[in-house]
Amino acid sequence: MAGSQGGGREASKRALAYGSAHTADAVAALGDMIRFPSVSADPRRRVDVRACAEWLAEHLSAAGLHHARLVPTAGHPVVYADWLGAAGRPTLLIYGHYDVQPEDPLDEWRSPPFEPTIRGDNIHGRGASDDKGQLLAHVAALTAYLRATGAVPLNVRCLFEGEEEIGSPSLPALLEREAQTFAADVAVISDMPILGPDRPAITESLRGALSVELEVRGARRDLHSGIYGGAVHNPLQALSEILAQLHDPRGRIAIPGFYDRVRSWSDAERAYMAAVGPTDADILRAAAASGGWGEAGYSIYERTTIRPALSVNGLVGGYQGPGVKAVIPARACAKINLRLAPDQDPREVESLLRAQIARLTPSTVHSAVRTQLAARPATVDRRHPAIRAAALAYRNGFGTSPAFVRLGGTIPVVDFLRRRLHLETALMGFALPDDRMHAPNEKFHLPTFFRGIVTSICFLAVLARVARPVAA
Amino acid sequence: MAGSQGGGREASKRALAYGSAHTADAVAALGDMIRFPSVSADPRRRVDVRACAEWLAEHLSAAGLHHARLVPTAGHPVVYADWLGAAGRPTLLIYGHYDVQPEDPLDEWRSPPFEPTIRGDNIHGRGASDDKGQLLAHVAALTAYLRATGAVPLNVRCLFEGEEEIGSPSLPALLEREAQTFAADVAVISDMPILGPDRPAITESLRGALSVELEVRGARRDLHSGIYGGAVHNPLQALSEILAQLHDPRGRIAIPGFYDRVRSWSDAERAYMAAVGPTDADILRAAAASGGWGEAGYSIYERTTIRPALSVNGLVGGYQGPGVKAVIPARACAKINLRLAPDQDPREVESLLRAQIARLTPSTVHSAVRTQLAARPATVDRRHPAIRAAALAYRNGFGTSPAFVRLGGTIPVVDFLRRRLHLETALMGFALPDDRMHAPNEKFHLPTFFRGIVTSICFLAVLARVARPVAA
Repeated sequence: MAGSQGGGREASKRALAYGSAHTADAVAALGDMIRFPSVSADPRRRVDVRACAEWLAEHLSAAGLHHARLVPTAGHPVVYADWLGAAGRPTLLIYGHYDVQPEDPLDEWRSPPFEPTIRGDNIHGRGASDDKGQLLAHVAALTAYLRATGAVPLNVRCLFEGEEEIGSPSLPALLEREAQTFAADVAVISDMPILGPDRPAITESLRGALSVELEVRGARRDLHSGIYGGAVHNPLQALSEILAQLHDPRGRIAIPGFYDRVRSWSDAERAYMAAVGPTDADILRAAAASGGWGEAGYSIYERTTIRPALSVNGLVGGYQGPGVKAVIPARACAKINLRLAPDQDPREVESLLRAQIARLTPSTVHSAVRTQLAARPATVDRRHPAIRAAALAYRNGFGTSPAFVRLGGTIPVVDFLRRRLHLETALMGFALPDDRMHAPNEKFHLPTFFRGIVTSICFLAVLARVARPVAA
Repeated sequence: MAGSQGGGREASKRALAYGSAHTADAVAALGDMIRFPSVSADPRRRVDVRACAEWLAEHLSAAGLHHARLVPTAGHPVVYADWLGAAGRPTLLIYGHYDVQPEDPLDEWRSPPFEPTIRGDNIHGRGASDDKGQLLAHVAALTAYLRATGAVPLNVRCLFEGEEEIGSPSLPALLEREAQTFAADVAVISDMPILGPDRPAITESLRGALSVELEVRGARRDLHSGIYGGAVHNPLQALSEILAQLHDPRGRIAIPGFYDRVRSWSDAERAYMAAVGPTDADILRAAAASGGWGEAGYSIYERTTIRPALSVNGLVGGYQGPGVKAVIPARACAKINLRLAPDQDPREVESLLRAQIARLTPSTVHSAVRTQLAARPATVDRRHPAIRAAALAYRNGFGTSPAFVRLGGTIPVVDFLRRRLHLETALMGFALPDDRMHAPNEKFHLPTFFRGIVTSICFLAVLARVARPVAA
């Protein structure tokens, strides 16, 4: 690592020394951030989401970043900050999100979801790993450079979103409107797991997503199931019948045309995945599941990354309280989430799904489909300089080379950044497979957090050398 | 109507005059009673249920009945009162229930469910017809006799239950333990609809009921549907698959052996049902449903009365809040309610259902069935003196003879009374088919309420003559 300006080997050494002397500060910042119940999906938490954004902007400003502010959107604000003092050097866009998943079911948490609690090597709390902890690894790296050397080795812009968990609905318009604000040469996102504490990984593909709400309506009012049981088609039953028909007996999604655009992978690629990726047993262990299920002919790793999936995320309908209520409800709803493989198009899939649901809806009920989010799948190019920089940084941070992995999740911003800002994105995770992202007792592994800070410090130094500045 | 003691034609005339002069009192009492949110299914409403019981006991005492009190049970109390001054006359047990169904979905009520609201000819509120209004028709009749004549023409005992809407779990033990308290010659229950405002009806059969909760479990914790979508069998999907298989394509319940004990009816009986019962169009109009569904080969009236039915009353699982949450939940639940035709046995059906659910549960998930209530079907004998008395009373109250009808609902106490106390029960409804029992905007039709009071006054008078006293 060598550089002529505001950086170089000496600067990164001092940043590394500062970082390792101040891990307690990083943990304290993460604890502060977990305390905000920044659940973007819940309108009642709007004030909490904003308070978290304000805390983050202040934290970035206190770290020495410039122009820290809340950028308003149609929904929750984006937190922006920059440090643009490395003239002639490339500009890195650091993306993260400060919003979190809803915390329910609350009674399964061992400690309150918004009270950061350290047990053993882990800090527990909603958002600990997804994405507050991973986001703060980069912020701690910037802080280390700025406090230890007064400079960052390249230009950086932070884009910390408050709507990732609801599909980033406001981001495309913002990136279009304020393209100059976010102009950069390359982007980094840390919002995914690696393979294990000693097995770093660079993500090279993500699935897309399509979330819809399917409503089935029957009679115009709730009916007594004693008096009317046997008379009308129960919307709960009709909904179950429709959902049951969305997979075939071999575990494939039963929507005509659905697989037409799904990319086929070479034997070599599938062999690489089998060699470096998690085994069926690894994935089932991490899922606390006793057995697998899904599309015949593929490993679970393949089924969850390069093959699409359809999951029911929630059912709503009828009586859900204690005891019994003899009711045939007027309507029932299912929240359905599809994960799309490269090269599926969410809008095309949406119309295939709508057509199939129309076909499957019996004439005795009515159905309606409301689309809630749509995001394209994304892939990154292993040969890109930012990806090579990420690999080198992991070697420094973790003492071993990263594997290239594929992820089943979706980060809509990766596709936006490519389409709107023409940026390649390094997907450098610091979470572990057992961090329980989206589940009760979410946690972040503190030794991996500290390695993540080291990795980010090295990434900034290497990227300063290898990336080609394009932005003005 | 003639009688030698504490009654006779003159007494019932005075009672009728009192009743018609005091309809406003009856409406006021019903309003008072609706104000108690006596939802027996909801443990948080325990205090409200008891408060309603206390109000009712005081109301009975103020009417001139004796021994008004709360009889403790393992659950909600029974309200008891009697008037036993008609030596040598038969004893009538008046059964009703002061508990009500849960009021959800709350946002569909035009006026608050526990604020009695008169609009046009109807009083609206949860429990208005089921069963507070129908119960109070008899209480108003007793009040009229006692205030106008100082006596009732026969002996009466009131048994007003607080657990009917949850399947009367405490009643069998109570009737066993305190058989003497409730000893009578015949019983009357008014907790069902007639055919229309000018079409009174005596119910001659009721379906039984079996309610179970079916839980399907997958992984031991909630999973991210991006990361794990395609890896494991989603409990929501597996539950849908099981539920979809509980009916065959012809609308029959797909449980082996299920129909073995269902009684076959003669052509004459089915012709009578077709002649006097509601048409498919009548039932669908009352249900606000655009089309029917169910077992092929039967009218909707038959499908909802002499044929069994299986209804899903509620689904619980996954995320049900606003927006999206990418979750594969660890478990999902369905509340399933079966209505059993004569001569099905709920315990036998329970084991057939359990066996079928075990067969339908894929090896990739676990299922559990918890039984919540079980009640036998019941039929009454048209030739019984109490049924003849009921028919005569309706002729007086409504100016026309009642039809004999069959009901799809379940009143577990009818079977208990026969088995424990050896009583035949007259099932004399005062509700209308469009009273929205169990649904939002439940109501009671006030002109029918007043006819119900007249009918009850006449029933007491006729029964005093025709029923044979057996009890000591």
